[in-house]
Amino acid sequence: MDSKKLKELAKCPYDLTKQGALNPERIGKYSAEACGYKLLYSTERVNDGVMQALLDLSLQTKVFEKMDAMQAGEVCNKIEGFPSENRKALHTATRDFFHPNPSPAAKEAAALAKKEIDKLKAFMPKLDQFKDLVMIGIGGSNLGPQAHYLALEHLKKPGKNVHFICNVDPDETAMVLSQVDLKNTIVLVVSKSGTTLETATNEELVKARFREAALDPKKHFIAITGQGSPMDNKVKYLESFYIWDWIGGRFSTTSMVGGVLLAFAFGFDVYYEFLRGVSSMDKAALNRDLSHNLPLLGALLGIWNRNFLHIPTEALIPYSRALSRWSAHIQQVAMESNGKHIDKQGRFVDYPTGPIIWGEPGTNGQHSFFQLIHQGTDVIGLEFVGYLENQCGKDLEYGGTTSQQKLISNLLAQSIALATGEKSDNPNKDFAGNRPSHLLIGTQLTPHSLGVLLGYYEHKIAFQGFVWGINSFDQEGVQLGKVLAGRIINCFADKKNRKGYPVADAFLKQIETL
Amino acid sequence: MDSKKLKELAKCPYDLTKQGALNPERIGKYSAEACGYKLLYSTERVNDGVMQALLDLSLQTKVFEKMDAMQAGEVCNKIEGFPSENRKALHTATRDFFHPNPSPAAKEAAALAKKEIDKLKAFMPKLDQFKDLVMIGIGGSNLGPQAHYLALEHLKKPGKNVHFICNVDPDETAMVLSQVDLKNTIVLVVSKSGTTLETATNEELVKARFREAALDPKKHFIAITGQGSPMDNKVKYLESFYIWDWIGGRFSTTSMVGGVLLAFAFGFDVYYEFLRGVSSMDKAALNRDLSHNLPLLGALLGIWNRNFLHIPTEALIPYSRALSRWSAHIQQVAMESNGKHIDKQGRFVDYPTGPIIWGEPGTNGQHSFFQLIHQGTDVIGLEFVGYLENQCGKDLEYGGTTSQQKLISNLLAQSIALATGEKSDNPNKDFAGNRPSHLLIGTQLTPHSLGVLLGYYEHKIAFQGFVWGINSFDQEGVQLGKVLAGRIINCFADKKNRKGYPVADAFLKQIETL
Repeated sequence: MDSKKLKELAKCPYDLTKQGALNPERIGKYSAEACGYKLLYSTERVNDGVMQALLDLSLQTKVFEKMDAMQAGEVCNKIEGFPSENRKALHTATRDFFHPNPSPAAKEAAALAKKEIDKLKAFMPKLDQFKDLVMIGIGGSNLGPQAHYLALEHLKKPGKNVHFICNVDPDETAMVLSQVDLKNTIVLVVSKSGTTLETATNEELVKARFREAALDPKKHFIAITGQGSPMDNKVKYLESFYIWDWIGGRFSTTSMVGGVLLAFAFGFDVYYEFLRGVSSMDKAALNRDLSHNLPLLGALLGIWNRNFLHIPTEALIPYSRALSRWSAHIQQVAMESNGKHIDKQGRFVDYPTGPIIWGEPGTNGQHSFFQLIHQGTDVIGLEFVGYLENQCGKDLEYGGTTSQQKLISNLLAQSIALATGEKSDNPNKDFAGNRPSHLLIGTQLTPHSLGVLLGYYEHKIAFQGFVWGINSFDQEGVQLGKVLAGRIINCFADKKNRKGYPVADAFLKQIETL
Repeated sequence: MDSKKLKELAKCPYDLTKQGALNPERIGKYSAEACGYKLLYSTERVNDGVMQALLDLSLQTKVFEKMDAMQAGEVCNKIEGFPSENRKALHTATRDFFHPNPSPAAKEAAALAKKEIDKLKAFMPKLDQFKDLVMIGIGGSNLGPQAHYLALEHLKKPGKNVHFICNVDPDETAMVLSQVDLKNTIVLVVSKSGTTLETATNEELVKARFREAALDPKKHFIAITGQGSPMDNKVKYLESFYIWDWIGGRFSTTSMVGGVLLAFAFGFDVYYEFLRGVSSMDKAALNRDLSHNLPLLGALLGIWNRNFLHIPTEALIPYSRALSRWSAHIQQVAMESNGKHIDKQGRFVDYPTGPIIWGEPGTNGQHSFFQLIHQGTDVIGLEFVGYLENQCGKDLEYGGTTSQQKLISNLLAQSIALATGEKSDNPNKDFAGNRPSHLLIGTQLTPHSLGVLLGYYEHKIAFQGFVWGINSFDQEGVQLGKVLAGRIINCFADKKNRKGYPVADAFLKQIETL
C-alpha cells in the first residue's frame, strides 16, 4: 500500500472546527447517491485533494479489477505460495438473478443458487404448516439471519415466531425450548461443513427434547449444509438446502442460510425482494464513478481514518430500532474479513488493517457511550445510518414534530456536533470537535432497502480488503482456540488427560476451588 | 498521574509466548478471590514488579481514601473551580442495608432508599395484578434494567412479560404495543429530571394508545423520578417511586429504576437478594488487600493495558447467554463515566482516560470478531466472564462432556491461545500471542452473584476514574448534541426556522431529495 501523498495530506487534515468550515456548499458537494441511499460525508476530515488521493490509491491497488474478478468467480480466497482455502468468494451469485453476471463461473453458481431458491418456493406449503422456527447455527449462521429478521420484524406473518440458538450454552437451548410448542416447531440446523461442534451439540440437545416429547426429529429438522456433508442426509432431515464452499459464513444471509428463515417469517416474496435489493448494490459496486459507488466511497473514508488519521475503531450507529443487531452482524463481516496480519502473498503487513467495529442504536447510545465519543481522549470514526420514514406507520406529533422527525434531528445533530465542536470557558463544557463521521440515509427500511444496505457493507468491507491487499475471505485466526478448546474438553471427558496438559489442569484447579 | 516506574516497566512487559511462561505456578499465583468470584490474571502481561508499581500508583492517587469518601457520601461529583453538578455519588446507599456505612450522609441516603423499597414491598399486591410491564426510559434507565432482567430471565414468574421502549423511534413503541394487552399492562416511566425529551415523547405515544383503548393512563402508569420533579404528580400516576440527585442514571439499577421491574418479573425477594450481592462487593471494594479487592485489581490491570501498553479498547466477553446485554450496560457505565478530557481541577489531561468498551457473548464471538483479536494488527485487552454451572439445570452429555463443560473449555482455551500464540511456517497459521486477558469466574449466575458482578464493574470503573483523577459521575459531553438536536427539531416544526440554521437546512435539503 504505497501512499506517500496521503501521509503528507494527513499532516494537516481539513479542520471542521473553523468558522464556516462546515457550510451548505460543502454539505451539498460531499454527497453521493446509489440505489436509494445518500452518503453524506461533509463531516469527514477530507477535501478534494484527499478524495483524489484516495481514488488514486484505489486505482493503484486495482480495486475495480478485483471487484470484477470476485463477482465473476475468480479464485480470490487464497494466499499465494502457501496452503490456503483456494476458493471463489461468490456470495454475489446467491442473488444474481436480475441482471446476471455473464462469466461462466458466476452463471453456474447463480444457477445452483436459483435451484435452491426454487426448491424453497416449492417447499413453502410444508414450511407454512409450522408456527415456530428454531434456527441452530453459530457465527455467520446466526448473526446475519438474526439481524435481518429483526430488521423486518414488523412484517412478520401472524402467528409465526422465530428463535435462535447459537452459543454452546445449555441455558440458551433451555430458554428457547421453554417458549415453543415442539409439535408445531421446525428446526433449521445450519453448518456448511456439517461438523461444527457447537451446532452439533445444540442439535443433539434439541433432538433429545423432541424424542422425550415422542416426536420424530426427522419430521421437524431441516439441514442447511454443504452438498455431501455429513449433514446432507435424507434419513435424518425432512429436507436439505445447500450452500457451497464459495459462500463464506459471514456472507451467507442471501443464501438458504437466511432464505429459509426469512421466507418462513415474512413470506417468500419478501425474501426475493430483499435479494433484488442486495443485487442492485452488487451492480453499484462495479461502478467506476465514485459518486455512485457508495461501498467504495465508504471504504476509502474508512481507510483515510484508519490508516492516515490513525483512528483505531469505527462505530456503526443506526438510528433505527429495527437495526438493533445490525452492528453485531457487520462487526463479524468486517472484523472476521479484515482482521488479518498478512497480505495475499503471505507477507506480514506493516500497516493497520481492519479496525474494531462496534456500535448500538442511536438515541439510546447518545445517553450512554456518546460521552466518550464527544469528550474522551480518543477519536472514534462514526458511520450513522438513518431513514426519513418509519416502518410501522404509527407516529404521533408531540410538541409540533413527529418522533421520526425527532429521531432524524438527533442523528444530524450528532454528526454536526462531533464535527464542529464548541469552545467554552468551562473546560467541562468544551468540545474539541474534528471527530469525523458520515451519514448513510435512506427513505425507509424495507426488504429492498435492507438488501441494499447489506450490499453496501459486504462490498465496503471487500474494497477495504482489496486496498490493504489482504485475503478477506478466510478465517485462520479462529483455529488455535478451537484446537485448545478440544484439548480442554478432553480434560473434562477424562481427568487422566489433565496430566498431559498442565496449564489447563492449573486453570481447572483454580476454578474448581471456588 | 505520575508513573515513571510503570513507563519503564512497560518497555519490556512479561512475554507470555516464551516456552513455559504461562505455567501452573504462575496461574496459581496470579489469582484473587472475593464474594464467590475468582479473578485469574496470569494471562496478563504483568509480573510482581508491575503489580507492585500498579499498587503504588493506586496508593499515590489515594484510591482507597476516594472510595471510602464516595461510599460515605462526600460530594465527589464536581470539578474544582468551575460550575459543576456538585453532588454525592451515593449509589452504594441504595443497597446499604446489610452492614451499613456509619457516616451520617450514607445513613440518611440509605434510609431514603429503604423507604422506597418498603413502599415497593407494600405495592407488590397491586403490581402483581398486571401481566405485562412496559418500561419507558433511555440510557441508564434502559441498559442496566434490561441487562439485569435478561440475566435472570430463567426466574421469570409464569405469565409475566417485560418490554422496553428507549429510543425515540415510533417503530419501537409500535412493536412493543403490538405484543401487549393494554388492559393488563403497567407502564413504568423513568426520568430523574422528569423532563427527558425521548422519554416524554414515548410516554405520550403510549398514553395516546391507552386513551384510544378507553383506558385511563392514571391507572396504568407509574413514575420513577426525582422527588418534586414535573413527573412527581399523583394526579397523573398510579404511584411514584423516588430517586435522588446522588444516583447517576448509569448507577441506578439497584434503585427503584431497576427495583420495580425486577420485583415485578422475579418477585421482591429476588430483587432484595440481588441487592445483598451488590452490597457485598461494595464492602470488598473497601478492602486494602488487593488479592481480595477484585474491582481495584481489575481497574489496575485495565490501566496497565490502557496507559502503559497503549491498548485503546477492552472487550468484555461473557460466556453466558444470560449476559447477552451485559457488555452494552457496562459500555455505558464505563464510557460515560470515564470518557473525560479534563481532571477534577478542570485541566485537560495529557494521558488517555476511559477506553472503548465493547463485546458480545463468547462462543458466538469466537465465530465472529475473534479472528481480528487473534490475528489483527491491533492488540485488544479482554475481560472474560464465565460460570462453572449453568442456570437452568437442563444439560446433556454429548461426546462425553456437558455443554457447560464445553462452554468453560472454550473460555479457557481463548485466554491461553491469545496469551501464548503459536508459531507456524505458514504465516496465515501464525499467532503472535501476547494478547492480554483475564478471567472472572463464578460458580453460577444467580440474583446474588449477578449483584456481585454489578458491584465489580461499578467499582472497577470508579477506581479507574480515581487513578486518572477525573470526575466519573457527570456527563457534560452529551449536552451539545442535545442542544443542536433541539434546533433541528425546530426546523421541522416550522420551515421558517431553517433560514436561521443554514447548516441544518443544507442537510435537510440533501435528504429531502432522496
